[in-house]
Amino acid sequence: MQITDLRSDTVTKPTPGMLQAMFSAEVGDDVYGEDASVNALESKTAALFGMEAGLFCPSGTMTNQIAIKVHTQPLTEVICDITAHIYQYEGGGIAFNSAASMALVHGTRGKMTPQQVEAHIRPPDNIHFPETKLVALENTCNKGGGTYYSIEEIAAISRVCRRHQLALHLDGARVFNALAASGDSAQDYGRYFDSISVCLSKGLGAPVGSVLLGSSGFVNRARRVRKVLGGGMRQAGYLAAACIYALDHHVERLQEDHRKAKELEAALLQTDYVESVLPVETNIVIFRLNAVYSDKAFVDALASKGIRAASFGPQMVRFVTHLDVTEQMLQHTLQVLQALSRTPVTTA
Amino acid sequence: MQITDLRSDTVTKPTPGMLQAMFSAEVGDDVYGEDASVNALESKTAALFGMEAGLFCPSGTMTNQIAIKVHTQPLTEVICDITAHIYQYEGGGIAFNSAASMALVHGTRGKMTPQQVEAHIRPPDNIHFPETKLVALENTCNKGGGTYYSIEEIAAISRVCRRHQLALHLDGARVFNALAASGDSAQDYGRYFDSISVCLSKGLGAPVGSVLLGSSGFVNRARRVRKVLGGGMRQAGYLAAACIYALDHHVERLQEDHRKAKELEAALLQTDYVESVLPVETNIVIFRLNAVYSDKAFVDALASKGIRAASFGPQMVRFVTHLDVTEQMLQHTLQVLQALSRTPVTTA
Amino acid sequence: MQITDLRSDTVTKPTPGMLQAMFSAEVGDDVYGEDASVNALESKTAALFGMEAGLFCPSGTMTNQIAIKVHTQPLTEVICDITAHIYQYEGGGIAFNSAASMALVHGTRGKMTPQQVEAHIRPPDNIHFPETKLVALENTCNKGGGTYYSIEEIAAISRVCRRHQLALHLDGARVFNALAASGDSAQDYGRYFDSISVCLSKGLGAPVGSVLLGSSGFVNRARRVRKVLGGGMRQAGYLAAACIYALDHHVERLQEDHRKAKELEAALLQTDYVESVLPVETNIVIFRLNAVYSDKAFVDALASKGIRAASFGPQMVRFVTHLDVTEQMLQHTLQVLQALSRTPVTTA
Amino acid sequence: MQITDLRSDTVTKPTPGMLQAMFSAEVGDDVYGEDASVNALESKTAALFGMEAGLFCPSGTMTNQIAIKVHTQPLTEVICDITAHIYQYEGGGIAFNSAASMALVHGTRGKMTPQQVEAHIRPPDNIHFPETKLVALENTCNKGGGTYYSIEEIAAISRVCRRHQLALHLDGARVFNALAASGDSAQDYGRYFDSISVCLSKGLGAPVGSVLLGSSGFVNRARRVRKVLGGGMRQAGYLAAACIYALDHHVERLQEDHRKAKELEAALLQTDYVESVLPVETNIVIFRLNAVYSDKAFVDALASKGIRAASFGPQMVRFVTHLDVTEQMLQHTLQVLQALSRTPVTTA
Repeated sequence: MQITDLRSDTVTKPTPGMLQAMFSAEVGDDVYGEDASVNALESKTAALFGMEAGLFCPSGTMTNQIAIKVHTQPLTEVICDITAHIYQYEGGGIAFNSAASMALVHGTRGKMTPQQVEAHIRPPDNIHFPETKLVALENTCNKGGGTYYSIEEIAAISRVCRRHQLALHLDGARVFNALAASGDSAQDYGRYFDSISVCLSKGLGAPVGSVLLGSSGFVNRARRVRKVLGGGMRQAGYLAAACIYALDHHVERLQEDHRKAKELEAALLQTDYVESVLPVETNIVIFRLNAVYSDKAFVDALASKGIRAASFGPQMVRFVTHLDVTEQMLQHTLQVLQALSRTPVTTA
Repeated sequence: MQITDLRSDTVTKPTPGMLQAMFSAEVGDDVYGEDASVNALESKTAALFGMEAGLFCPSGTMTNQIAIKVHTQPLTEVICDITAHIYQYEGGGIAFNSAASMALVHGTRGKMTPQQVEAHIRPPDNIHFPETKLVALENTCNKGGGTYYSIEEIAAISRVCRRHQLALHLDGARVFNALAASGDSAQDYGRYFDSISVCLSKGLGAPVGSVLLGSSGFVNRARRVRKVLGGGMRQAGYLAAACIYALDHHVERLQEDHRKAKELEAALLQTDYVESVLPVETNIVIFRLNAVYSDKAFVDALASKGIRAASFGPQMVRFVTHLDVTEQMLQHTLQVLQALSRTPVTTA
Repeated sequence: MQITDLRSDTVTKPTPGMLQAMFSAEVGDDVYGEDASVNALESKTAALFGMEAGLFCPSGTMTNQIAIKVHTQPLTEVICDITAHIYQYEGGGIAFNSAASMALVHGTRGKMTPQQVEAHIRPPDNIHFPETKLVALENTCNKGGGTYYSIEEIAAISRVCRRHQLALHLDGARVFNALAASGDSAQDYGRYFDSISVCLSKGLGAPVGSVLLGSSGFVNRARRVRKVLGGGMRQAGYLAAACIYALDHHVERLQEDHRKAKELEAALLQTDYVESVLPVETNIVIFRLNAVYSDKAFVDALASKGIRAASFGPQMVRFVTHLDVTEQMLQHTLQVLQALSRTPVTTA
Repeated sequence: MQITDLRSDTVTKPTPGMLQAMFSAEVGDDVYGEDASVNALESKTAALFGMEAGLFCPSGTMTNQIAIKVHTQPLTEVICDITAHIYQYEGGGIAFNSAASMALVHGTRGKMTPQQVEAHIRPPDNIHFPETKLVALENTCNKGGGTYYSIEEIAAISRVCRRHQLALHLDGARVFNALAASGDSAQDYGRYFDSISVCLSKGLGAPVGSVLLGSSGFVNRARRVRKVLGGGMRQAGYLAAACIYALDHHVERLQEDHRKAKELEAALLQTDYVESVLPVETNIVIFRLNAVYSDKAFVDALASKGIRAASFGPQMVRFVTHLDVTEQMLQHTLQVLQALSRTPVTTA
């Protein structure tokens, strides 16, 4: 049975073209700064986002954790939305790696307003509180169901940060989805963020890797943290070459993933087992089941038809569209979703 | 001008009897375990709460931070209410001292339900999350306006903790106020908590010191943490003797502080400048001003009449009654509160 | 000009056979445990060393740091030789990642005796000291000049550890060189160590990766630490396949690297600019220059002949032989070393 | 039986004059900065050492640990002698509180030369190493047997620190003994150190407390760390008043402790059970026993005569003279030391 894997956009495997690029990569010892492919990827990504320098790392968790460590110190605090990946899904890493405290904003589908950010800044001279040092956004917001900040919203939060001398970090696990949906320019991001984590192994389809962007000084400090976390790799150019290929070939096509996600949303809204769907903005579809199925039963029912999905909390299920979900797989999924309705759907 | 200090119950100074107890104290080098007064205080407090052992420390922040450190490790998480002193007013100490993550419950006036606690426990086998290890209560709840948990509420949360193998800590900064208001028995606390921080320098009126209670094994581990934080003192018996005196002489009289706080509440509700008062349960009175005064203007107006109060956020003010607030000071304060009303209050 | 790179055995590039293995690798999302090549590498390495389980990581620094973190907690101490890579070259990572203290043994060329280990164990009940929890060996010892522990020496240290309930970790950055030189069995290592870091990207020639070995319980805890450090990779099978190939094809040939290192040692001893050479035991040649050359001048002189070497402190230089140093490169190097002697060498 | 306690100078109890000073102290809530006695002690100590500001803390371990935390960050390193109290006797606190790495110098009786300090500074741009940030001296050196640095030696180390932009901290647990022995001026210390921990509860005889000195900016940062460690006390003026009394009355008399220590040394050198005595420079006498007694047997033999001494490692014993060792106790001790000789001592 053919498998349609909608669990996450992390499951993609390299295309033949990407594999070819990997296979012919020029490599060297990156700990000595001699891996040409890694160097090229770091420069290319930095240039794309209008930033000075980049650092290749084995995961987006590492790029986020390094950025937070460089921007903070013990006795300081990070402001982020309570749904943020850095707080929810990185194993308690901010406390572990940075010994920094957290101020958690209850935003809307993962997005904070400038007012909310400002209300969470601690008075800097009161020693009862940690010192606020960093604000972190996630764009798109995974747990928010793929919502995105527009460049105007980013600019407004950036103004709050600069007024209070706070750094602003972007968890760009799916930043290319945000750019595809908003039509904003990657270049503009460089004007507002002090650091950006760009993931290449989600929607872009590379097997492994994220690039952390910032000023040259920031990246030098980040390199020291990467060393101590054990993120320095030797001939990493095989991975970097895949990332370069992904930047060159897989950005434009993200619109297609978004279109497929919208079709899944539409189909779900027609069934009798879905209570609600978080309005789809990019490639993530999060929906709540009514009493007809539990999330586990529903995921099992899909699995029996060759479709893999992720349980996302009680009665919650998540689909993510990506490079390896073909048109034919989409059609199959749409049919299965319809067939799982106990009441036949009438499309008049 | 006589000063009526309502900023906090930490401002009390020893009574003549307490001073006498301090200066006739038998002391020794407590780092060698040879300070008789410290040893007596530790045993006495432990016995009072039905626990095995105690450890004298220079502050309630230290007893809380030590307890959290002993119960957790890096990669674990603490559940507490978002208003908790351990999260709000200890300088980001949980991240600093324990590198533990926080799950913040939005309870009611600082109090969590067993259901809320349970909903914040992480699935133990999912490595995306820290492991939940500790639940911490604060009784009474300072930022909640002096609310208290009853022993039944404590027992119910304790059952959740034991079912999930979590430790349960009590920040007992004002635990004697909770006992005075609830009529519960200190002995019963020992059955539900794995550790208790008992503060003697707030409502009880001792100049310095808190005692951390737990099992003998727990206190041995706590002693090691106290050492590394620099909390080991030499001839600390002078301070401990004041604490013993406080336990012997200042517990019964807390009812009087509570009565005074109720009178302040009643007076505030009759003014034209108060929007609302958090219903008073113990010795803390937190109220919101309407547009007539800003919190700063109001605190200044009181100060000009010899009354000190604490601004507690925008438009918020806090009064705390204690040992050094005499009946005469209370009457003066009631008069001033009334006089500050722009509309004369008619008591028909 | 052809480059002979003797700086480190980390500079090797994949052979055609290894490249072929990489690009025909079966991969999957390793965060879901679905990468067949990663799974195969972890099992194969564990089996080789007689241990239960393995965990693939992007570097040997990460495998070491994870092991130390799992074995220790804050307030504990690690015993190692003062030359150990974990102390000297991991960026202060033990303090950073584990907040553990260090007891540094002054062994002989990086090797500690059981007596030295035992003398550094702290009395467990004295709270002035951290608790000793872990002993870490490095085999072979890089900074010691490639010295190795025999299995008997390991067994003796293991007995000290077990008597005092300490864990024993091996930094096996070059463990295959130790095995090649000693003739000991990898299987036996599993009996003495609680964890082993096995590096595949040094002498074995894989581009990226180390495997951390231990009991199943240990590896479960290690996986949690890997997550929080950001070491979890997605389709890491391309890297793992190279490692499997290395285990299958590049272990036997290490003897050849050792023979070349001995030839370099012999040549150096015949020159007039070398003060001493640390007797060569494996693939590392560390030597001290006399006043004829500074280390910088000597490294530059070699570079002008196409030979790259590492300055290793004042007047110290290090050569490392490896897979990419051909017989022809060795002969060229031997000639250059002789030619750099200002006094012509007479071989009677 | 009268007890002569030579275990440590921490065991002293307040004199009647000191008790009187404590009893009549003016106090307030020091967390609000309102304790007049604490404020006076901080200013007085700072002025004495020519520094801007001071911070009162419950122990010398806390003042040291706070200073190290303020001067360092994770990923940095501290240079100190291997015998230093901060490394040997503070529970592994540097790793715990500061996550800083240690470079341990093997000096002479606890004293490092400027050359040794400089040789342990890490190259600042090499990310394999932590960044050196702090050098810490201990004066006098406890484990070195009460040795002291002269102001010229301090100045020379200070020059190395300034050349490399390193902070210089003094653990002044017994700084008044160093000043008494050297005749150096406390004022001059302020020119060379960036922070000084001054302990009042050792030779000076106060029951509890140390003052941390530095610039105003340093002390502001230190206050934040004291908060998070739980070192903020409320009406701490009772302790501070004893410290002020100690500064006023107990500094001059330290010469007497030193004279008594020299007499003990002379007596020990005449016995048949002492192998060697570290030449006495201040109030500490550390000696090695030959095979006649084990350290435990010797300490027990003294105890049976009412003399308490500290075992200080295998065959090692330490005496410390202090305020509570009277002339009569000294004479008794000298007689007992002589009597413990199995061969009668002939004083010709």
